Amino acid sequence: MSDVLGGDATLADLPLRDDLRGRSPYGAPQLDVPVRLNTNENPYPPPPELVADVTEAVREAAASLHRYPDRDAVALREDLAAYLAEATGVPVTAANVWAANGSNEVLQQILQAFGGPDRVALGFEPSYSMHPILAAGTRTEWLPAPRRADFSLDSAEAARIVAERRPDVVFVTSPNNPTGQSISPEDLRPVLDAAPGVVVVDEAYAEFSAQPSAIALVEQYPAKLIVSRTMSKAFAFAGGRLGYLAASPAVIDALLLVRLPYHLSAVTQAAARASLRHADATLSSVHKLARERDRVVESLREMGFQPVPSDANFVLFGRFADAHRAWQRYLDADVLIRDVGIPGHLRVTIGTPEENDSFLAACKIVSEELDQ
Amino acid sequence: MSDVLGGDATLADLPLRDDLRGRSPYGAPQLDVPVRLNTNENPYPPPPELVADVTEAVREAAASLHRYPDRDAVALREDLAAYLAEATGVPVTAANVWAANGSNEVLQQILQAFGGPDRVALGFEPSYSMHPILAAGTRTEWLPAPRRADFSLDSAEAARIVAERRPDVVFVTSPNNPTGQSISPEDLRPVLDAAPGVVVVDEAYAEFSAQPSAIALVEQYPAKLIVSRTMSKAFAFAGGRLGYLAASPAVIDALLLVRLPYHLSAVTQAAARASLRHADATLSSVHKLARERDRVVESLREMGFQPVPSDANFVLFGRFADAHRAWQRYLDADVLIRDVGIPGHLRVTIGTPEENDSFLAACKIVSEELDQ
Repeated sequence: MSDVLGGDATLADLPLRDDLRGRSPYGAPQLDVPVRLNTNENPYPPPPELVADVTEAVREAAASLHRYPDRDAVALREDLAAYLAEATGVPVTAANVWAANGSNEVLQQILQAFGGPDRVALGFEPSYSMHPILAAGTRTEWLPAPRRADFSLDSAEAARIVAERRPDVVFVTSPNNPTGQSISPEDLRPVLDAAPGVVVVDEAYAEFSAQPSAIALVEQYPAKLIVSRTMSKAFAFAGGRLGYLAASPAVIDALLLVRLPYHLSAVTQAAARASLRHADATLSSVHKLARERDRVVESLREMGFQPVPSDANFVLFGRFADAHRAWQRYLDADVLIRDVGIPGHLRVTIGTPEENDSFLAACKIVSEELDQ
Repeated sequence: MSDVLGGDATLADLPLRDDLRGRSPYGAPQLDVPVRLNTNENPYPPPPELVADVTEAVREAAASLHRYPDRDAVALREDLAAYLAEATGVPVTAANVWAANGSNEVLQQILQAFGGPDRVALGFEPSYSMHPILAAGTRTEWLPAPRRADFSLDSAEAARIVAERRPDVVFVTSPNNPTGQSISPEDLRPVLDAAPGVVVVDEAYAEFSAQPSAIALVEQYPAKLIVSRTMSKAFAFAGGRLGYLAASPAVIDALLLVRLPYHLSAVTQAAARASLRHADATLSSVHKLARERDRVVESLREMGFQPVPSDANFVLFGRFADAHRAWQRYLDADVLIRDVGIPGHLRVTIGTPEENDSFLAACKIVSEELDQ
């Protein structure tokens, strides 16, 4: 008999859904390694002024913790709209914005409203691996479509596939995770024109990209286009869990039908608003990271690796005869990067210059071993 | 043309799921009324020491906001387990506990793992109205089963229905919201014995109840029993959004397959842990509220109302020829209570003595009007 309460039952004893049997929980290994370049976080800690402001905002919110939060998070959505309007030049208002606990919850809500049983979601792979997982979680059929051999998206071919397969939800990740390339608004148009349902442009890494945001197309495609964003990356707010989206007010009305009431805590709303007030400081790291990214790409090339051109804060690179074995070599050198399951490739997040130096030093060891 | 971005599209233009068309978003009206007794919150604000501790915990967490939180929230689950072990005398450990953004998310995860398309969830109505909404959101068929005319649960009849209908998920709310009665562990046994799937005992209001927790039955029913809880009520942490559950470790393994990665922010984890350190202070309000509840019930009776016996921090009472009209009368008297859709009845949350006095004064006006 187990000495843990209820420890005699195993997963096999439970009336679990059949489609979940044998599956493993999603997630990169959370290992305590000196150089962690595996989850595309911003390597720069929040500046002291931001920490102080978040703290004061939470102190104020904490006095009313016995009360439920604003269910519709209006003030936060106003702040996010103001940020998007300034960043994109598009007149985004709170009525165009929705927020949830990370973009995963935003995307899950989109699939609950527009996907689900007897509906189909399509994505261009390789891409963000949570898209098919969220489809499975909402019982939406997942249809993988290809990218070019160099991982870029062929817009005309994408539109052709969408017209042929008629998915209810199309995901386009730009910049694409884990490969790094962006797609322009002009190249999105054929996909939007072909789509019978909604098109979700996942712009989690938009701040790192030179491409204009797809938000510029919301006015033209109000019943189709949803642009998702996150504060986890450029905003250095991964621990705060704040994802959001921009779309027409009708899309927001649809999401209100599936969101859990009071899904966003008063503390999260207050902390996110405080963090947004320091957007200029946080986003100043974006240029530094873009420069470092270009340096890393150049160094990788010089060492004989094949990096994929990137518009984000990470770089996919190859080629390895055995990517998982190479991943372990980096880990042995105290550098945690990500094996994203693409044969011959690994993904590295751009860190501080010191972290990138450690990574490049590990690369040198790995490349010499591979030469032998 | 609308002057809001994308404002020309309406909900009818969107490729929304058919089962969502015509629905309204869930939620009590959030009105700015002097006396708010409508959402079963704890009326006592967090003590200054708790606010200070939450603030310091968030200050510490904020320094690492650029990093993703502990995906499995281990430290928080340890603290919740310690609280449950002390409160129930059952040797609950972190391996028995799971937490999410409010018990709504906990219940949604349970339905994702054990419900879903082609599966059935059953509840004894009237009960917590989110149960069927969460079932709909996860495309689980909802089967309502009856309570006695006095809203109490007939355990033998409940077991008979469960044996006959063989639902995959059974919800038993104890104390039952919005009616107030609890069910004893002994009366739960026949339901557990009859259930072919999982039984979720929703103990959101457990701290207000004189009944022992169903957690005592986890050891005996490790593959069936899940007990959900929340910090929103007795813990006065509604704004912090922290729901949790106790079950066998195998159940936690199942939930790891459906939870969104990093669903619980570093800020939420830190704030909840700080709040738990003040459990003694927060829970001291429970006895005050129970005494006030008994006073309110007695006064309602004296005024000729028919209150339902309650083991929670709210009271369902009647009878009104037109409950919605009566609800409006209370609102006109600056007292916001809840029309939960039970003909002839309204629900009032127990507030501070002053708030309850305001409510009872409004009751006097309403009862005199009804006498005319």
